[in-house]
Amino acid sequence: MPNLVDLADLPALRIWNDVVARRVQGERLTLAVVELGPDSVVPEHRHPNEQCGVVLEGEVTFRIADETRRLGPGGTWRIIGDTPHEVTAGPEGAVVIDVFAPAREDWEDRPVVGTADEPVIPVWPRGR
Amino acid sequence: MPNLVDLADLPALRIWNDVVARRVQGERLTLAVVELGPDSVVPEHRHPNEQCGVVLEGEVTFRIADETRRLGPGGTWRIIGDTPHEVTAGPEGAVVIDVFAPAREDWEDRPVVGTADEPVIPVWPRGR
Repeated sequence: MPNLVDLADLPALRIWNDVVARRVQGERLTLAVVELGPDSVVPEHRHPNEQCGVVLEGEVTFRIADETRRLGPGGTWRIIGDTPHEVTAGPEGAVVIDVFAPAREDWEDRPVVGTADEPVIPVWPRGR
Repeated sequence: MPNLVDLADLPALRIWNDVVARRVQGERLTLAVVELGPDSVVPEHRHPNEQCGVVLEGEVTFRIADETRRLGPGGTWRIIGDTPHEVTAGPEGAVVIDVFAPAREDWEDRPVVGTADEPVIPVWPRGR
């Protein structure tokens, strides 16, 4: 398996209703580029994996336990494992980096979006 | 310590000669936004931490063991722990995301660039 890959060549997975991710899957961590649709909501959830991230494009409102902030490009988060968190994208949606340790093995069952004949083009870095 | 922080409010660390990083430091992983100066070179090295990453801006030539590629925005890498790797930035430099698990504790001794009075502004997301 190659270790140097363009994002557009990684399969797009539907993680939530209006949330698609492409991931670099290591043995100890997952690096995901995540596209959130306009006004999409990732409802409160938690997982044992630690999660850090940063906004690339657009805006999100992030809540971690009792801490809430609206974040634009360059806004970061740090979620120690098992801490409840939720995210709402702004009206233009957002593209963010989400990183997990240990690796997210539970994404293995997420459906792939698009086909070889009709691939789904990444929103970032080409611009929306 | 707040868990929702703007990149510009994180200290800039000089990691190598012409390489500066700001990091979100978790308990199990480090997420770093790394600025590589024009034509800067990170010579071959290795570390037990697994490392994955993606180019945000600019170009890098990445070598992992015997695999080499030139990567622009959206180009990704996956470096299993203790694999030798090196990076050369393009003539306009680059900004990349680098993620490590376990967290990079050895960056604790890196010097901070800039001061409270004269902060160093992040190259990304404001643009160079």
